[in-house]
Amino acid sequence: MQKPVYEKKSISLEMANKMIEAAKEKARAIGVPQIIAVVDEGGNLLALQRMEGALLACIQIAIDKAYSAVAYRRPTDVWYDFIKDDPPLLTGAGFFPRLVMLGGGFPIKVGDEIIGGIAVSGGHYSHDMECAKAALEVFEATSQVSK
Amino acid sequence: MQKPVYEKKSISLEMANKMIEAAKEKARAIGVPQIIAVVDEGGNLLALQRMEGALLACIQIAIDKAYSAVAYRRPTDVWYDFIKDDPPLLTGAGFFPRLVMLGGGFPIKVGDEIIGGIAVSGGHYSHDMECAKAALEVFEATSQVSK
Amino acid sequence: MQKPVYEKKSISLEMANKMIEAAKEKARAIGVPQIIAVVDEGGNLLALQRMEGALLACIQIAIDKAYSAVAYRRPTDVWYDFIKDDPPLLTGAGFFPRLVMLGGGFPIKVGDEIIGGIAVSGGHYSHDMECAKAALEVFEATSQVSK
Amino acid sequence: MQKPVYEKKSISLEMANKMIEAAKEKARAIGVPQIIAVVDEGGNLLALQRMEGALLACIQIAIDKAYSAVAYRRPTDVWYDFIKDDPPLLTGAGFFPRLVMLGGGFPIKVGDEIIGGIAVSGGHYSHDMECAKAALEVFEATSQVSK
Repeated sequence: MQKPVYEKKSISLEMANKMIEAAKEKARAIGVPQIIAVVDEGGNLLALQRMEGALLACIQIAIDKAYSAVAYRRPTDVWYDFIKDDPPLLTGAGFFPRLVMLGGGFPIKVGDEIIGGIAVSGGHYSHDMECAKAALEVFEATSQVSK
Repeated sequence: MQKPVYEKKSISLEMANKMIEAAKEKARAIGVPQIIAVVDEGGNLLALQRMEGALLACIQIAIDKAYSAVAYRRPTDVWYDFIKDDPPLLTGAGFFPRLVMLGGGFPIKVGDEIIGGIAVSGGHYSHDMECAKAALEVFEATSQVSK
Repeated sequence: MQKPVYEKKSISLEMANKMIEAAKEKARAIGVPQIIAVVDEGGNLLALQRMEGALLACIQIAIDKAYSAVAYRRPTDVWYDFIKDDPPLLTGAGFFPRLVMLGGGFPIKVGDEIIGGIAVSGGHYSHDMECAKAALEVFEATSQVSK
Repeated sequence: MQKPVYEKKSISLEMANKMIEAAKEKARAIGVPQIIAVVDEGGNLLALQRMEGALLACIQIAIDKAYSAVAYRRPTDVWYDFIKDDPPLLTGAGFFPRLVMLGGGFPIKVGDEIIGGIAVSGGHYSHDMECAKAALEVFEATSQVSK
């Protein structure tokens, strides 16, 4: 038999908060109040911050976008290119539960392993992606140091 | 009056498990970790297995896809061709509760009678269909033998 | 291996309607406008009628009560005696999804086999039970004749 | 700073299936058809089997009970004693989302670490606990061997 138990990695709350700070800093720099959500590798919410003035509707969208990044194992911005020339998928994917198909959600990875997800919601998806990428850069820098 | 009661057939748990094993074997062969769900002829969940690394978002999709195969009495892959030239249906069908319109869900039939449904979710719908078909082949082979 | 497929019995729509008529007749006799629901052996709604003046809130209760009779495999009136001296069950059972613990829901059986469920909702549970029993008597009489 | 990433353990599908078989064997021995669900340490469904004749209503209860064992980090049977002398909790806990407060759900642990959860639903909670414990014994035995 396979081993009865296997190992997984998961992002720490402290790291999540550090990423959120980086996303907020970028959001302030571009003048877009954002909501930033981090989920663990099981898709469960780990941390969320809503900046003053951010769109209320984006609270759930941010949570679902971070969930989507983990639960579909890909950045949320790849969906449109992935489905646009595949008519059945284009028609059907929109109804998947909790799937957010707009940019701004990213899996957080160590090598090939997904250890969590981060999403930013509140601006145009290009703004959301920009802020989320700022957060990912902090993760990458910290991970390098801690190796 | 008609008979007050009529006979139905339903898939056994043991057969469902056998089908799931066949789908998993195909999934391993093509390298796509999958979730496989089997429902009975009433649409109620009978068995489910999630392979390591399968998309978490596909747990509910697999259950709903198997339900769709039974509850709409057709393989889930026929939906797109069925609705693509019918704009109202194309627009409206996606909002039907629990309907999954992508391939990978099939009714399990004895003759013309639906006795359950199986669905695979986790890959592109073409992968899902391939794995579900492997499961159906096992059902067909076993049914022949048991006649 | 067990047989891959097994046989089930299910109530016909025609029989369901006949039962509903009997429940309505009793409801008129006692002066309580009722809602009567019949589900099949898989818990799926088969027929429902709401009499003029019946409590709107009881539409869903009738459906869930019929579902409860099938899905928990017992008349809904037995719950209170079943749980009243079992504190954990008394505390926990009320939160079971769709469980209605008041009288008026009954499995419809052929021998020991559940082939559907009927529920009446709209009056005091004693009224609901009275009307549902009138429906079951019609089922019993018809089943005898059709043997 | 803490490490940005930490290690978790998670139960394998193969182990889950083995535990389900043990629960089914006990269920057959005591004559109670059961539904058995296993979730991973993130509360996500990993495997489920419904035995022939098991209560349909218990499909969702089994899933939620396994989720409860993981998400509240305790066996589901401890809830009643935990809340019975605490009136606000007794009143309020039942409305917690997805919480099942009846026995039959257990965290699966390696040392102090929760790596998943198993739940059995379909009988009285004492039956459910008996079957779930049979599954846990198989896990313990296998874990010892694999060390």
